[in-house]
Amino acid sequence: MPTLYYAPNTCALASHIALEEAGAPYEARRLDFAAGEQIKGDYLKINPKARVPALVTERGVITENPAILAYIAQTHPEVKLAPLDDPFAFAELQALMSYLCSTVHVAHAHRVRGARWADDPAAHESMKKKVPETVGACFGLIEGQMFRGPWAMGEAYTVADPYLYTLARWLEGDGVEPARFPRVLDHRRRMAERPAVQRALKSEGLA
Amino acid sequence: MPTLYYAPNTCALASHIALEEAGAPYEARRLDFAAGEQIKGDYLKINPKARVPALVTERGVITENPAILAYIAQTHPEVKLAPLDDPFAFAELQALMSYLCSTVHVAHAHRVRGARWADDPAAHESMKKKVPETVGACFGLIEGQMFRGPWAMGEAYTVADPYLYTLARWLEGDGVEPARFPRVLDHRRRMAERPAVQRALKSEGLA
Repeated sequence: MPTLYYAPNTCALASHIALEEAGAPYEARRLDFAAGEQIKGDYLKINPKARVPALVTERGVITENPAILAYIAQTHPEVKLAPLDDPFAFAELQALMSYLCSTVHVAHAHRVRGARWADDPAAHESMKKKVPETVGACFGLIEGQMFRGPWAMGEAYTVADPYLYTLARWLEGDGVEPARFPRVLDHRRRMAERPAVQRALKSEGLA
Repeated sequence: MPTLYYAPNTCALASHIALEEAGAPYEARRLDFAAGEQIKGDYLKINPKARVPALVTERGVITENPAILAYIAQTHPEVKLAPLDDPFAFAELQALMSYLCSTVHVAHAHRVRGARWADDPAAHESMKKKVPETVGACFGLIEGQMFRGPWAMGEAYTVADPYLYTLARWLEGDGVEPARFPRVLDHRRRMAERPAVQRALKSEGLA
C-alpha cells in the first residue's frame, strides 16, 4: 500500500486530497517538522531533499506535487482527475501545476523560509515584507487569467484543484485579503465542502 | 506550425532543444528581454506571466518547461522522449523536472532576480552571496542522488536531459565549480555534442 509522507500546513495536503479523491488505498504518515524529522536519516533515505510530499510506492518513491498528482490521475483513470487522452489539455493542466510549484509556492515561502536564499536576517525581513505583494500578484493572475471555473481547468475537476486549494488556504497568513479574488475564494469554499477534502483535513488534524 | 518564444540564456533552451530532438516542425521567435519585450502588450497576450518559454500551438498556448517538455514527448511518441506507458517512470521524470523548475532554477534566479522577492538592495546582495552555496547544494543532490547515467533518468534519453543541461550551463555564472560534479559535467559535454543541441544553440546565437 502506498505511503504518503506529509506535514500539516504544507503543500503535501494537495497530494493527500488527491489520494482521497481517487479512492486510492494508502497510508498517511505525519512528519514532525518542529522536531526536524524531515532532516533525519530515516526520512532522508526516502527523500534526500528533506521535503514533503513523498509517496512511497511498491516501485519506489515519487516526490514533488506535480509528479505525484499526475501519477495519481494516471493510475486511477476511472476517476478522471486529468485529461489523460489529450496531450494539449494535459499540458495546460501541467502548466498551472508548474506555476503553482515554481512561482506561487516559492513566493509564499519567502515569508518564513528566507534562510533558504539568504543568510542576513535583514534580508529575511525584506523578503517577508514583499510577500503580500508577490503572492497577491500571483493570485491576481490566477483569478483574472488562469482560473476557468467552476474548477481550475474548467468544467472538469482535476488534480490542479486540490493544489490550488492548498495554496489558497495560505492567503490570510501571507497577508493577502482573499476577498480580492472572488472566484478563487468561491473555489476554496466549494473545495472545503467536498468529502475527500474533509477527510484529508481531518486526517492532518486541520478540521 | 507551433511557435516557441524564447530569449537567449534563459531556461527556454530546454524546450528549444526538445523540439529539435523531436524533429517537430516549429518556428522559434526571440524576445529581446533587454528591450522589455516580455512585458509588452503583444507578448502579455500570449503569456501574461511575462516569462519564457511559451509554445503557441493551433489549440492555444502552453507555458512552463515541465508542461511543454512532457507535451513534446507525448505528441512525438515515436521519438521516445519519455516513458509514456509507465506512470511510475513518468512520475520519476516529472519529479526531476519539478525539482529543476521549483528549486534549482529558483536558487539560480536569486543571483540576478532578487527584485522579485525583496525591495531592499542589501537583500539582493545577501541573496546573490548565497547562490554558489544553494545552487551547489542542488547539483550535489543531482550528482549524488538523482542522476542515473548515462542520461538523467538512466539508459533512455528523455526530455529531462535538455532541461538538466540548460541549468547546468549556468554553473560557472553562479560561482559554482562544475568539476565538483563529474557526472553532471560529463553529461553536459555529451549533450553539447548532440546535433539537436547544436542546432538549438546556433538558432539562439549561443554557438
